[in-house]
Amino acid sequence: MSTSQNQQIQITKAATTKINDVDFDNLTFGSVFTDHLFECDYINGEWQTPVIKPYAPFLLDPSARVFHYGQAIFEGMKAYKDDANAVWLFRPDENFKRFNNSASRMAMPSVPENVFMNGLNELLKLEEAWVKKGNGSSLYIRPFMIATGTGVMANPSDNYKFMILLSPAKAYYAGEVKVLIAEHFSRAANGGIGAAKAAGNYAAQFYPTNLANKEGFQQVIWTDDTTHTKLEEAGTMNVFFRIKDTLFTAPTSERILDGITRKSLIELAASEGINVEVRPVLVAELVAAAKEGTLKEIFGAGTAAVISPISGFSYQDVYYELPKSEDTYASHLKEKLTNIQNKLTEDTFGWTVKV
Amino acid sequence: MSTSQNQQIQITKAATTKINDVDFDNLTFGSVFTDHLFECDYINGEWQTPVIKPYAPFLLDPSARVFHYGQAIFEGMKAYKDDANAVWLFRPDENFKRFNNSASRMAMPSVPENVFMNGLNELLKLEEAWVKKGNGSSLYIRPFMIATGTGVMANPSDNYKFMILLSPAKAYYAGEVKVLIAEHFSRAANGGIGAAKAAGNYAAQFYPTNLANKEGFQQVIWTDDTTHTKLEEAGTMNVFFRIKDTLFTAPTSERILDGITRKSLIELAASEGINVEVRPVLVAELVAAAKEGTLKEIFGAGTAAVISPISGFSYQDVYYELPKSEDTYASHLKEKLTNIQNKLTEDTFGWTVKV
Repeated sequence: MSTSQNQQIQITKAATTKINDVDFDNLTFGSVFTDHLFECDYINGEWQTPVIKPYAPFLLDPSARVFHYGQAIFEGMKAYKDDANAVWLFRPDENFKRFNNSASRMAMPSVPENVFMNGLNELLKLEEAWVKKGNGSSLYIRPFMIATGTGVMANPSDNYKFMILLSPAKAYYAGEVKVLIAEHFSRAANGGIGAAKAAGNYAAQFYPTNLANKEGFQQVIWTDDTTHTKLEEAGTMNVFFRIKDTLFTAPTSERILDGITRKSLIELAASEGINVEVRPVLVAELVAAAKEGTLKEIFGAGTAAVISPISGFSYQDVYYELPKSEDTYASHLKEKLTNIQNKLTEDTFGWTVKV
Repeated sequence: MSTSQNQQIQITKAATTKINDVDFDNLTFGSVFTDHLFECDYINGEWQTPVIKPYAPFLLDPSARVFHYGQAIFEGMKAYKDDANAVWLFRPDENFKRFNNSASRMAMPSVPENVFMNGLNELLKLEEAWVKKGNGSSLYIRPFMIATGTGVMANPSDNYKFMILLSPAKAYYAGEVKVLIAEHFSRAANGGIGAAKAAGNYAAQFYPTNLANKEGFQQVIWTDDTTHTKLEEAGTMNVFFRIKDTLFTAPTSERILDGITRKSLIELAASEGINVEVRPVLVAELVAAAKEGTLKEIFGAGTAAVISPISGFSYQDVYYELPKSEDTYASHLKEKLTNIQNKLTEDTFGWTVKV
């Protein structure tokens, strides 16, 4: 290992690389990490010197607040490589802003922009060999922050650790996705933390999703917890519905994540001349449209899968199969968006940022 | 260190003890831990050999599922020492059952009863010098489980770690507690995880509690997230209201924790001839009773504080001060319950269990 100082980041390089052991054509999402990670500790009110160092397990006290009271947030981003081997990010400012919005809701400190952005940029420069070219290839980026302060008193931690991990990813195909519309379980409360990318929101979904899996459904479409009549998210993604030729998605709220893929698709669809309506979408509308044959598509939208088409949904024990088509908004918008992300087409939106 | 095998628990003793450095008269709740902890790992579907070993930090992978998706649950219990130096637990079977109910809701494996109970008993035997005599003294017990499996895919972990920590505690006096009734924020959704002792539920409360603190209130009384008209919990405790001479508390639900102190107080109050009504309690009732002078007490109930009296509440920017009295249900029931827990009076309920 060699240690050097770069833009106030203390960099310790790994003695060897794992890259030659990785089969980049057969990657399981989120399972392989690059040689280095970025880390910055927050101790008694101050961010410490950020470091880039070899990816490795780290020590935590058994009473660390993250284990007991769940102060933990994250982001999901991707880096892409263009034909000239330049590395690009997609709307990183949006992830940075949302990360600190999540931090605020979870009573955690804001990460300074230079810590987040310089850390990410320097880490990506060091790991650029891990970013592969071509549509569908990317380097998934996982910034996260956890409470490291010790003691099992139920109040916010004094100390935190902010880290960035990198994981190479291929295009994400979930296979056929049938969904169950939630009639009892919920992912978010009014006045709760549904709009934050808080770790606990995800664990809360596992049990209801397991139950859906047992009934043959891959995901749950979450509804509002009060009436279960409004369609809000699909699994860990935002959700879009195409009825006739209009694309519908729910407005963001304190129950619904302000997805970056979601907002990009809304802009992109509008620019393609697709009529987009952002308003609460009712289960009753979806069922009525499915019955009369005007429901053409449902798809999830998120960083990992970009767009994940849904083949049918179940509600009150009735299964509604969607029409199969090659010419869908989902496939059209996914191609447009991934072409922008992968720098295969001009980015007229100014969404891509060079590392 | 010496290692031995005891009832299939592998015990490694610490070379030295910290006990002589601890000021047992001046303890901050949850900040000091005993010399040893209990640990049992769950790996690929099987619980491994449980161990008791010196309390120390442990290694986790940066991609450990607990950091990213919040699979983490806990319990709070206490051990007490009687005049004959025997160590006692209070309703440990209830904590064990609730722990596994929480595990189920968070898609985590059940901890076998012998792992939980033998582990706790053996750890307490080893640490019995840390249990101090006298009303108010106890050894706080923190069983918890975290997801240790690696990889940032959003599904349940394969691997988990179950641990028990011990922390000496004195009687817990919060000082004067004024509360703010939640009009916007919430701790639990219908169909959510409010009834589970899931780590994420606690972090979600920190921000609204911080806001209340800034306005001069120590805690928040949580209301239902749909209408904010029903009184549900106080901070991290269940909540009781005395109107005239009747004690009211909300029924447990998927939004409200099935508190062991709560259910013990309901039984104890009834046995003392106090009229107890378990039914939804409305904010409007509380305000009306405060205005007409029939609201005599509000108190929180939980393992850490046992009973925490509340001196007044604010709702819609109006502050209602409660009457001051020495002769309260809170002080009477707290004395009765702590006398049972500390073995200073006969336990006619069969709640106490010898270690």
